[in-house]
Amino acid sequence: MSITIDIAIAKTNKYASRESGDTAEIVERPGGGMSVILADGQGSGRAAKSLSMQVTAKVAALLKEGVRDGAAARAANDFLFATRHGQVSATLDILSVDLKTNSVAITRNGDTACIIQTSAGVRTYREAERRLGLHSRTRPCIEEEPIVPGLRVLLVSDGVANAGQRSHQSPWDLNELATFLTSGQSAADLADSILSEAIRRDDGRPGDDMSVVALILREPVAAPLAIRRMTAEVPVP
Amino acid sequence: MSITIDIAIAKTNKYASRESGDTAEIVERPGGGMSVILADGQGSGRAAKSLSMQVTAKVAALLKEGVRDGAAARAANDFLFATRHGQVSATLDILSVDLKTNSVAITRNGDTACIIQTSAGVRTYREAERRLGLHSRTRPCIEEEPIVPGLRVLLVSDGVANAGQRSHQSPWDLNELATFLTSGQSAADLADSILSEAIRRDDGRPGDDMSVVALILREPVAAPLAIRRMTAEVPVP
Repeated sequence: MSITIDIAIAKTNKYASRESGDTAEIVERPGGGMSVILADGQGSGRAAKSLSMQVTAKVAALLKEGVRDGAAARAANDFLFATRHGQVSATLDILSVDLKTNSVAITRNGDTACIIQTSAGVRTYREAERRLGLHSRTRPCIEEEPIVPGLRVLLVSDGVANAGQRSHQSPWDLNELATFLTSGQSAADLADSILSEAIRRDDGRPGDDMSVVALILREPVAAPLAIRRMTAEVPVP
Repeated sequence: MSITIDIAIAKTNKYASRESGDTAEIVERPGGGMSVILADGQGSGRAAKSLSMQVTAKVAALLKEGVRDGAAARAANDFLFATRHGQVSATLDILSVDLKTNSVAITRNGDTACIIQTSAGVRTYREAERRLGLHSRTRPCIEEEPIVPGLRVLLVSDGVANAGQRSHQSPWDLNELATFLTSGQSAADLADSILSEAIRRDDGRPGDDMSVVALILREPVAAPLAIRRMTAEVPVP
């Protein structure tokens, strides 16, 4: 099927903290397609960052060997549990566009919220399975959708889903968050607009690390040549 | 040092070929900073693609463990040589912004051309060390520059550097290519403009796979919060 995969990640740190504990990565799948891997390590600072990098590195290496997403998440759990003895945990989300199975799969462990928009409407998920690393038999929560132009998926970390809660507001209603999904926008614009609103809800001072992952499947623009693009913009404090 | 790392990759396939033999990846470095890994497998089609994915996967895994770039390139050579008995080769380029050593390092094996623009002027490199996989003691060619705002680095595959050669033109003069480096542009605009010109020089039908990697180090924009962004746009034929 002819389609354009449009992926964007936008992140910011907890206010006044230099380093975030989460890591996001985009990898190519050996059978065709792309995966986004998002991990958040327990705690804060350098230890949490190292932990989330280890988890994404493990999962990225497995996916590139053709290991299926659910097995990679289980492997990451078992690896953490075996090496850290159930004493540290991490969240893990894998968002894959798998051209071999012709499906989009969202594999989650932890508290990242998920919004899926299809032609049938919007579905929202606030909780997922338990975090990785704490138990020997942790399984991921997996949602699957066929690859169809118009499909949109959002993953937002709890720092985004709970934005505004401190200032006596309720947590961000995921159906209200879903109203940011408008037609014609790019994944980058979508991720940026949600991150901006989350920051605004926290009065400009994020109470926690914030990550937004946006995936849009679009009809390809008619063009003589297919051009692939990747970008990264990383401010160093 | 306060700086914004701006990275972009733009790629297209050889005309009328469905799959390119090269793979590009952006990874975060455990000591801080980012690396771009670019590999091109010998031959064409699925085998070349698998090969380049294996090479980038190996190098990405090593960099994420904190292995230095030159050692990762040597390891990728030895791995290929040991498992494929000197019978297949790949090119490898690693472009790193290393916050631990405060330097930008360009590590190359193969025929990717390199352009470095500093306040002292423009340097161009057409050839590098030999390709990986064919000999037991292959070493990379390494250029290093201090991290300074205004530094720009371009890596272009031989399909770009040789664009226009078939239609009785000479290969693209790298100093002429360097005139595409203008101030104020984003890495994405820079990579796109060079890829477009390369395609134009091949009369709209690229004679080979074409990849452009652009790195720009910029003064960060004054903003209350630092926001990290990554995007990927992948058309599937």
